[in-house]
Amino acid sequence: MVLARDIFKEFKEHSVSEFFRKNASMLGYTGKIRSLTTVVHEGVTNAIDAAEEAGTLPSVFVAIRSIDKDSNHYKVVIEDNASGIPDEFIPRVFGRMLAGTKLHRNVQNRGQQGIGISGGVMFTQATSGKPAKIITSTGDDDGISYNEVMIDVNKNRGKIMDHKRLEGDWRGTRVEFEVKEVIYQRSRYGPYNYLRMTAIANPHVQITFEEPDGSLTVFERATEQIPDEPKPIPPHPAGMRADGLLELSKNTRSKSVGTFLVNDLSRFSRNKLKKIENMVDVNLDKDPSKLTWDEAESLVSAFRKMDFMAPPTKGLRPIGEENIERGLRQILHPDFACAVTRSPEVYHGGIPFIVETGLAYGGDAGNRRGSEEGGLEIIRFANRAPLIFNQGGCALTSAAKDIDWRRYEVNTERTPLTLFINIVSTHVPYTSAGKQSVAEEPEVYEEVRQAIMEAARKLRRFLRKKIRRKERRQRANLFEKYLPIISQKAADLVGENPPEVEPLIKEIAGVESDEKK
Amino acid sequence: MVLARDIFKEFKEHSVSEFFRKNASMLGYTGKIRSLTTVVHEGVTNAIDAAEEAGTLPSVFVAIRSIDKDSNHYKVVIEDNASGIPDEFIPRVFGRMLAGTKLHRNVQNRGQQGIGISGGVMFTQATSGKPAKIITSTGDDDGISYNEVMIDVNKNRGKIMDHKRLEGDWRGTRVEFEVKEVIYQRSRYGPYNYLRMTAIANPHVQITFEEPDGSLTVFERATEQIPDEPKPIPPHPAGMRADGLLELSKNTRSKSVGTFLVNDLSRFSRNKLKKIENMVDVNLDKDPSKLTWDEAESLVSAFRKMDFMAPPTKGLRPIGEENIERGLRQILHPDFACAVTRSPEVYHGGIPFIVETGLAYGGDAGNRRGSEEGGLEIIRFANRAPLIFNQGGCALTSAAKDIDWRRYEVNTERTPLTLFINIVSTHVPYTSAGKQSVAEEPEVYEEVRQAIMEAARKLRRFLRKKIRRKERRQRANLFEKYLPIISQKAADLVGENPPEVEPLIKEIAGVESDEKK
Repeated sequence: MVLARDIFKEFKEHSVSEFFRKNASMLGYTGKIRSLTTVVHEGVTNAIDAAEEAGTLPSVFVAIRSIDKDSNHYKVVIEDNASGIPDEFIPRVFGRMLAGTKLHRNVQNRGQQGIGISGGVMFTQATSGKPAKIITSTGDDDGISYNEVMIDVNKNRGKIMDHKRLEGDWRGTRVEFEVKEVIYQRSRYGPYNYLRMTAIANPHVQITFEEPDGSLTVFERATEQIPDEPKPIPPHPAGMRADGLLELSKNTRSKSVGTFLVNDLSRFSRNKLKKIENMVDVNLDKDPSKLTWDEAESLVSAFRKMDFMAPPTKGLRPIGEENIERGLRQILHPDFACAVTRSPEVYHGGIPFIVETGLAYGGDAGNRRGSEEGGLEIIRFANRAPLIFNQGGCALTSAAKDIDWRRYEVNTERTPLTLFINIVSTHVPYTSAGKQSVAEEPEVYEEVRQAIMEAARKLRRFLRKKIRRKERRQRANLFEKYLPIISQKAADLVGENPPEVEPLIKEIAGVESDEKK
Repeated sequence: MVLARDIFKEFKEHSVSEFFRKNASMLGYTGKIRSLTTVVHEGVTNAIDAAEEAGTLPSVFVAIRSIDKDSNHYKVVIEDNASGIPDEFIPRVFGRMLAGTKLHRNVQNRGQQGIGISGGVMFTQATSGKPAKIITSTGDDDGISYNEVMIDVNKNRGKIMDHKRLEGDWRGTRVEFEVKEVIYQRSRYGPYNYLRMTAIANPHVQITFEEPDGSLTVFERATEQIPDEPKPIPPHPAGMRADGLLELSKNTRSKSVGTFLVNDLSRFSRNKLKKIENMVDVNLDKDPSKLTWDEAESLVSAFRKMDFMAPPTKGLRPIGEENIERGLRQILHPDFACAVTRSPEVYHGGIPFIVETGLAYGGDAGNRRGSEEGGLEIIRFANRAPLIFNQGGCALTSAAKDIDWRRYEVNTERTPLTLFINIVSTHVPYTSAGKQSVAEEPEVYEEVRQAIMEAARKLRRFLRKKIRRKERRQRANLFEKYLPIISQKAADLVGENPPEVEPLIKEIAGVESDEKK
């Protein structure tokens, strides 16, 4: 029998960097192809977010250069045209996990964890032993800052290994990661497809991509419109939990519980305040930081009995139906495309989200892997960033699979159909720090389902028309073929000239071409 | 245009507890049914690990009691018979994430992160506002320690809210979590099935389970044998990476690189040392802490050219073919069961693992959800802990699905078949801190595939015999029916008595019953 004191001699505490170093698979570093795509994903995500935060139309340059192909040794370069990073923040942005500008604000961003880009630095040093190079400038007179950064894993701290100032007039950030144990491939899971999918969902972004063989692809911008700057959205009362309300109340600047509710929650008007006064036994004049658990619980359960307006949309930035359709048409050249952007909803904790779906039928749409002809292809996005791995464990996928597609005239094995799904939120409920699949939150699952069915109904109208048109055309063909013969026979029988059948046939064909419009 | 200094005003650093509080879905807290199962899973995992570490035959008591059914309010109790926890470690074990006895040692355990049980405490306080109760005793004369623990999320620190000493003579630990926003169900995803699956893979554990309606189930032990104490296994040279070797070299007690390789790696003999001396340009007498990246890389690439014995098995504790078969037979009562425990393999970083598979055919085996008859059911385990969620995103599932089952006479839609898969490792490559699916590490995927095919070949032999037997029986039936008639007719024709056909029919039937044995 082993005693407690002997067992607990081994007790230790660890840094979050140590944890993710040991569990790199949780950050998406699994396998040689995926690991490279993950590095690109983290860099591009940060680049687009940074440009949007800076109010600039994002132009992103990505290069993957082969250093030594036999030893799977590559350099990844990602450059943005955003605000640049002040020197003092460089070790923290690139060398410290769980640090950033995004975690604590309820802002819709691609990144939301403060882990990803440090993960790229960690993967770099773990596979090539090299520091990451960070070249950045805020555009002021100081010129350009050149830095080599590594992570002190045990302390979760960034270390600047080299630093110098370069001359030049430029604004933006360029990161260079030298990585080994990766493979470049133009497959479904490779960087090329990742960037192509990014372009579909981000028509305002220009991406220039240099592949290891030197070939250059430019994914051109389809719109010059800078998306609105992402704005914080206060939590919505529906779905709020006592725990979350208490946490907010500890950090508010409001002096009373009443003003706290109005200021720190979405859609909580003075009117609602009057209403809730009669529903709960809580002194609304008291200091919000003194709120007890029981008081928070009774407030929250009162929220559930009240009606609130849907969460505000201004902070959430969906792609929009027009842009989704445009993206699908541009890339897939389908016979039919439609899109749905639903109204905002809320999942637990009061977190607002919007689901968007699109369907493309025919053309290059559908699942064409291997020898199959068509079939349902699902492409998933979260805050416009493509999710290309872990399709199986994702609520977006399972909602799509649970639809009875036959009701919409779709055969999932044969119909050439691409389903586009984007979830937009200040906080996407990912299943993992690798951010490749969305957790099965019941409200999210249900909303995705509704959004898919709404798009599918539009598709069904098109497909049914198509079926009717086909039937009518078959009928018209029949008339065209036999009507002259029948009229000739009839004329012969009665011994007269055959009647003019051309106008009749034209009329039938006319009905059809009308409908085509 | 927004300037860098304005953007970086918002820069903040966060604790790992804050991160997982915001991303509870990454720990498995999604949905009301799953969240309750996750609490049970974390408690039971810790309980069995603790008993095994203490060298005790594990007896675990689990109770789920309804406090207020309408508000989904339950109390979860989990009690073990392990070593108990010294007072000074209680806030760190239950209130601090990334702390524990398991992370840094290469030991096979169910838990390996130092996150899970603190996650249970966090879920408790986030849903009910209550502290977790921890009652523990190391069995010495001090009696029993009663504690109420909460987490200071911003600091990632445990807080003792109440502490007292109780009289009593007992050794073990009992945790009580009062949780809300959960539902108790006896479904596939509920605690009952979780414990049933735990019992299948842990025949040495006795589990007593009290359900909210008061009914008591005892999953009896099937063996009295205490499994070997888990032992650290040094990393294996195959698959080792420069980064990992350097990390090890910084923490070794060895004085030279040579002794470091022999002492700190598995299967690195004096002989291998002589061999590597001629392969690399590294001074093997130098201080290991002075090893450079390039030297580590050249050592590692030399490892790849050498042959090493497979990793040692003594530290890994597979269930074993006999026990897997026994478990399957006991629970599923199949017509046929077989199991395979493969030899240890290594995945990147030199981490050893073993894959075990089992197949049960007929009886209660197979996927019987809904109205379907049979079909392939996959039950997954990692270090004997059931994985019941995120089936889709798991390498074990995808390896199983990628098998061409028809080659093994299996129709995955109809054959009543249960496939059991267990991966045993000092470090299972989970995709997420929620530990419900295994990442697609190529070596792991391939080994699981091989293990499944090996079991499937055994099944095929059984199924082919069964088919042959069936054909032979049909033939025998034919003879039985027609032989007397034919012999009578023949006798009539030649005008003689019919010959005795009974012995002939018996002989045919005899062949069959022989084969049945």
